[in-house]
Amino acid sequence: MSAKILVMPGDGVGPEICREAVRVLEALASDHGLDIELDEALVGGAAIDAEGDPLPESSLAAARAADAVLFGAIGGPAWDSQPRDKRPESGLLRLRAELGLFANLRPAILYPQLAHVSALKRDIVAGLDIMIVRELTGGIYFGKPSGMHTNANGRREAFNTMRYDEAEIERIGRAAFDIARARGGRLCSVDKANVLDVSQLWRDVMNELSSDYTDVELTHMYVDNAAMQLVRAPKQFDTVVTGNLFGDILSDAAAMLTGSIGMLPSASMDANGKGLYEPVHGSAPDIAGQDVANPLAIILSVAMMLRYTLDRADLADKVENAVGYALDRGLRTRDIVDDETQIASTQEMGGAIVDML
Amino acid sequence: MSAKILVMPGDGVGPEICREAVRVLEALASDHGLDIELDEALVGGAAIDAEGDPLPESSLAAARAADAVLFGAIGGPAWDSQPRDKRPESGLLRLRAELGLFANLRPAILYPQLAHVSALKRDIVAGLDIMIVRELTGGIYFGKPSGMHTNANGRREAFNTMRYDEAEIERIGRAAFDIARARGGRLCSVDKANVLDVSQLWRDVMNELSSDYTDVELTHMYVDNAAMQLVRAPKQFDTVVTGNLFGDILSDAAAMLTGSIGMLPSASMDANGKGLYEPVHGSAPDIAGQDVANPLAIILSVAMMLRYTLDRADLADKVENAVGYALDRGLRTRDIVDDETQIASTQEMGGAIVDML
Ligand SMILES: CC(C)[C@H](C(=O)O)[C@@H](O)C(=O)O
Ligand SMILES: CC(C)[C@H](C(=O)O)[C@@H](O)C(=O)O
Repeated sequence: MSAKILVMPGDGVGPEICREAVRVLEALASDHGLDIELDEALVGGAAIDAEGDPLPESSLAAARAADAVLFGAIGGPAWDSQPRDKRPESGLLRLRAELGLFANLRPAILYPQLAHVSALKRDIVAGLDIMIVRELTGGIYFGKPSGMHTNANGRREAFNTMRYDEAEIERIGRAAFDIARARGGRLCSVDKANVLDVSQLWRDVMNELSSDYTDVELTHMYVDNAAMQLVRAPKQFDTVVTGNLFGDILSDAAAMLTGSIGMLPSASMDANGKGLYEPVHGSAPDIAGQDVANPLAIILSVAMMLRYTLDRADLADKVENAVGYALDRGLRTRDIVDDETQIASTQEMGGAIVDML
Repeated sequence: MSAKILVMPGDGVGPEICREAVRVLEALASDHGLDIELDEALVGGAAIDAEGDPLPESSLAAARAADAVLFGAIGGPAWDSQPRDKRPESGLLRLRAELGLFANLRPAILYPQLAHVSALKRDIVAGLDIMIVRELTGGIYFGKPSGMHTNANGRREAFNTMRYDEAEIERIGRAAFDIARARGGRLCSVDKANVLDVSQLWRDVMNELSSDYTDVELTHMYVDNAAMQLVRAPKQFDTVVTGNLFGDILSDAAAMLTGSIGMLPSASMDANGKGLYEPVHGSAPDIAGQDVANPLAIILSVAMMLRYTLDRADLADKVENAVGYALDRGLRTRDIVDDETQIASTQEMGGAIVDML
């Protein structure tokens, strides 16, 4: 039976990069026996404009029916002054919650061909290969109660709750231990256990789990120190596991260490191998429609989809190798260009990858 | 009347760096007309060991009676497995709350003599001069309710509340606008308003305040993007204002950009000019007692004390200039050494500063 893939292009550069990713998928289908069915649905600002809702019922239903979602990017200044539930972002948050996509995998990899674009000195980042595993459906993003009201002193007051129970922590912990085991065998759990009760439970559960993973070395680090260590000596990290909010912050910092955030994919997985795959970068409304966006992050997200949902590691390797060849040949979109390389458009880059598959 | 300064050495390298800071204060008293009275009190692990409490009543009373507190550093593996209220950190948290030290000023400055120690490329960080203003007595650090319990499903569950009311936001906002006005005239407020109710209120209040500060340019940034931008192009920032948790993370990242966290001071101020002054670095138990710790962060914290509490900007300049001369002369503690410079001990560095006052 064909695997169902739902494409959700979203806003800004989302549609144009999705187009290149779809070309890659179609080439794999026609020439390499990938058995897929593609569908498309609105999300984010595009869905607000068309239907008044960043995640219309029909889009959610299509996402539920799919085996994997290929997600472009969402948001932009056009919707920034809306109330929070009428913003593009809330469509993505609801999608994560509704599909139970609790495990967000965010690799931060430095491509050797691109060492020059990092803000960090070459010896600090050369060979960087970190996997950040972020809990994605709990914590302060979804914790109840939350809200805004007028307090007893007649003042506006607002609050959110950072909350985890042991089952949520165990679930993401096991996912992270499994990933660490398949990688370098080292897992660093990041929390703020010297201040937060919720981090104390996080740390306790990680310690309890580690007896099931005696081959993985578990360490703990406070989030402020982790932010420092990422800048000082990022190669000390192999796999990192952390909560939703800390993961949001640290994974973006880690991505930026590589200098080429236009290169970085991500996967958000449920408990059964279903996943949503999206680039780490945002919708970049300032360059939308100009055919200059880097399509490699979403193409590498396709590779993650092939590996984690479609069980075609062979084709995932093929896509990743094609990206490597393109970089070797000096092809660069504007965001990763240097003196000796030529500037490729979004479509030229996508076409080059298709040619090299 | 003499100003009362309470020295709280704490743990690890705290006592040995405090000793050098006190030498500086005593030199200013004997040779430059600084009118001070010094007292000392236990805090942190040292206080736990002596009195079973990281902030004994007598220490708190002495801190209340003082005009300024000079704080060394706290914590270490010896106390890491204690319950949270019996850890060294909780002494510092209580001190901040009890003294109402709501405004935490954390400069991240790159000393031109030390550009080589940064992990970032020279052109990215040369001339870096950011001031992070962190709210220090509210947010998720202190928000109620918080705790750990067994939930309806029989599972352990833990939670903390991130809470701000408009008065707390306005107070730190005004402090930050004033600082931005005296610096480069640009204030970037960092939040997560696309996800958190409490950030939405934070953003609203900052916008409301800005009409009182039309000469300051206010911008907003999401915390994940701020973590990225600090790595990508840190010089875009002048003054940053943010909540307690985001400030903890971002100020440490910003400090580490300079590569010389052993150089960075901080001030935690109440509404009346009283302040607690401490280095940004921690207690570094691994090098405690070896006379190798860098005393410049705490000596520069003395400069902040002279400027913000003791109203002696002239002496603050003198201390900061002395630090500059010492660096110019090639004096370096181990943490900031390079090929062409000589290694100084903690005491040699402190003595050099005293000599150059
Ligand atoms: C768009 C936003 C709600 C989202 C998040 O905070 O999770 C984004 O920053 C991300 O990391 O995917
Ligand atoms: C020691 C710890 C409680 C403290 C904090 O988180 O505030 C420290 O990291 C700091 O930034 O001063």
